[in-house]
Amino acid sequence: MSILPYDERLAALLRVAAEVFAQKGYHATTMRDLSRASGMSLAGMYHYVSGKEELLYRIEQRCFGGVLEGAERAVANVTDPVERVRAFVRHHLTFFAANMNEMKVLSHEADSLTGDRAAEILALKRRYATLLQGLIAEAEGQHPHVAAYALFGMMNWIYTWYRPDGALPPTELADTFAQLFLEGVRGDADRPASPAST
Amino acid sequence: MSILPYDERLAALLRVAAEVFAQKGYHATTMRDLSRASGMSLAGMYHYVSGKEELLYRIEQRCFGGVLEGAERAVANVTDPVERVRAFVRHHLTFFAANMNEMKVLSHEADSLTGDRAAEILALKRRYATLLQGLIAEAEGQHPHVAAYALFGMMNWIYTWYRPDGALPPTELADTFAQLFLEGVRGDADRPASPAST
Repeated sequence: MSILPYDERLAALLRVAAEVFAQKGYHATTMRDLSRASGMSLAGMYHYVSGKEELLYRIEQRCFGGVLEGAERAVANVTDPVERVRAFVRHHLTFFAANMNEMKVLSHEADSLTGDRAAEILALKRRYATLLQGLIAEAEGQHPHVAAYALFGMMNWIYTWYRPDGALPPTELADTFAQLFLEGVRGDADRPASPAST
Repeated sequence: MSILPYDERLAALLRVAAEVFAQKGYHATTMRDLSRASGMSLAGMYHYVSGKEELLYRIEQRCFGGVLEGAERAVANVTDPVERVRAFVRHHLTFFAANMNEMKVLSHEADSLTGDRAAEILALKRRYATLLQGLIAEAEGQHPHVAAYALFGMMNWIYTWYRPDGALPPTELADTFAQLFLEGVRGDADRPASPAST
């Protein structure tokens, strides 16, 4: 018998499942694969979840729930609208740099859940997207809807190329992306000085 | 016997294979699935390719080769550095809006090829990324390396949310993205007029 309490064993199982799903793909993964990878028996896994789809659901729920709650906290104490966008970007990227497998799973398996579970995750995703769209609109950003998707694309694509333990730490990546999103790639290189850009 | 010539039947098979891979995932797809979806016999498919991996390889080769060659042509006759970036964005997005399944497969199955095939596709990808990094540097963009990945992220993420037949046509999406990338989300909303932004 394990000495880890219930929730910690579940958290460890979700972590391993995210890693296997990220490597092998959700559909190609069997409960037997997850048993091997986690060192938990099949019976042990079925004690926690009803099957593979519930694992995916719990990974997505924990990840979207966590990033949404964290983002709301991250912007809560910031008043300047432009700085609120920066705070959102910094939170999103540091969160996901610490959860690269989960992030890849979220990106790849968007359509793999069904029924109520799919609806619940979609609602979390919408709340998160709406939060960013609102921040962009407050910062007088143009096309907040399209711009929010563009920013999510910039940020979520990092699972294809970025190594959090490489030369560029997550906070620096975040500041570069926030600046790029707010001021454009040319920064204010050849613009006259203005109060909006430093 | 089919009356379609060799290449057209292969092209049709690649098209169907990209659709099935995009829906079901490469690893979960069998040659039998592709036979059902394409209406081609297993023997017929093995006449064209040695197996599933060669299909994936040919999809990626055709797609990366096509987008690279097209991009080189698209920027060739444009001299202004900023307009060259715009031309690249417009070409990339219209190409991929016309190849959404292939695009999803390219994004999801980056690690699924092996050996020489993987190396050949990686070389095409690098040439394409290097082209964009060069354009960004010419346009006096900051952090050309990171900025190129950010732009690819913005653009490639569209397979998760964009519908080419919806209210926003690909060329308009492209112009919005190019403007966002070049000038930032706030455009020149609260900046003094400058020769660089219109």
